[in-house]
Amino acid sequence: MRGKRQDVTVSPNGRERPIDRERLVVAALDLADEEGGEALSMRAVAKRVDRQVSSLYNHVSGRGELIELVRARIVASIDIGAFDHEPWDVALEAWAKSYLRAFAAHPKLIRLLATTPIRDVSTFAMYDAVVTSLVSSGWPIQDAVAVMRTVEAHVLGSALDIVAPGDMLAQSAVPAELATIRAALDPAHAESYGAGPAFRLGLEALLSGLRARRERLTH
Amino acid sequence: MRGKRQDVTVSPNGRERPIDRERLVVAALDLADEEGGEALSMRAVAKRVDRQVSSLYNHVSGRGELIELVRARIVASIDIGAFDHEPWDVALEAWAKSYLRAFAAHPKLIRLLATTPIRDVSTFAMYDAVVTSLVSSGWPIQDAVAVMRTVEAHVLGSALDIVAPGDMLAQSAVPAELATIRAALDPAHAESYGAGPAFRLGLEALLSGLRARRERLTH
Repeated sequence: MRGKRQDVTVSPNGRERPIDRERLVVAALDLADEEGGEALSMRAVAKRVDRQVSSLYNHVSGRGELIELVRARIVASIDIGAFDHEPWDVALEAWAKSYLRAFAAHPKLIRLLATTPIRDVSTFAMYDAVVTSLVSSGWPIQDAVAVMRTVEAHVLGSALDIVAPGDMLAQSAVPAELATIRAALDPAHAESYGAGPAFRLGLEALLSGLRARRERLTH
Repeated sequence: MRGKRQDVTVSPNGRERPIDRERLVVAALDLADEEGGEALSMRAVAKRVDRQVSSLYNHVSGRGELIELVRARIVASIDIGAFDHEPWDVALEAWAKSYLRAFAAHPKLIRLLATTPIRDVSTFAMYDAVVTSLVSSGWPIQDAVAVMRTVEAHVLGSALDIVAPGDMLAQSAVPAELATIRAALDPAHAESYGAGPAFRLGLEALLSGLRARRERLTH
């Protein structure tokens, strides 16, 4: 479709820039990053690439496919290499940290992607790597998805916390009569109570609890 | 301000309905539930209650205060009673479950509230109850906020998963060559791999890991 005359526009530097899926994915990602997942529509993407909505349908079947292309773009940045050679819990921890970085870069897309039925095959390929590691380490196949899914939920909630401004929880905003939370938010403890340290503390606890559960299954 | 003539409008049933903070909070909550946190602006709320933006400033100082009133409304539905009489881990579990229900009712507000600096005193009062329970159970004060915060992150990520449609992860969408994830998503296991069971499995593991950490502190 790329060569079609109606799909060619002139960029500011004078070169003709054909519309292709790559440009549409980038435009969709930028749009959602700026205005939120709710704003992602064929009409808004068309406006962003300066085309008629109808011409977008030469490249994607609709909003659903755009969302899955955006999902695939983010998933491509998540490292699943550890599942090949590390024990399940070590690999899960590395995956969770990489997953956090990938989604912390796109916080306004988290809700949309977490609540839109997955059709992107690359996402299922990632899940296959996770679940294969769990099952070959002795997790029952009927529990593997729940283990993966709760780690994902932990990561996505933490990604929202990580992108919050530094004064999200500010001692100065707490009235004096709430003495304990006020003391806990002493800036002297900031290195312990930040979103990053909290994520690492929680991930470690979650994995420790999962290990204990896995060990109980064996005995 | 309520009695001011400019603040009175006529409802469809003919009774005069004064604008007050209560109506503004309800309108803001409805608007964000429908259109997302990004859509929440003084202008949009004014339109919803059929008033000029300027008249809203008689009741709230701006968008920031509206957001905090919405936060307070949701926080009011979270049960913190268990912190009065239960051990820290039992109370934390009850709190997490109640917190999940409160936010699963407003998924489009999760990102906004998780990333807007907290100024609402009722939210800090809730945090004071959580942190007081942790500290009086032996958690170091410099760790208490991180423990609370990671449980919160787990809950908010899980709330997004809980509101996802039932076909979020559908075996039928997985290509045959991804055999393990396809087998794990056998509808026969649906009672184990759903978002609800995954949340409970993850919360139990997280609390078990936190208990282990708390015990190590004592020895």
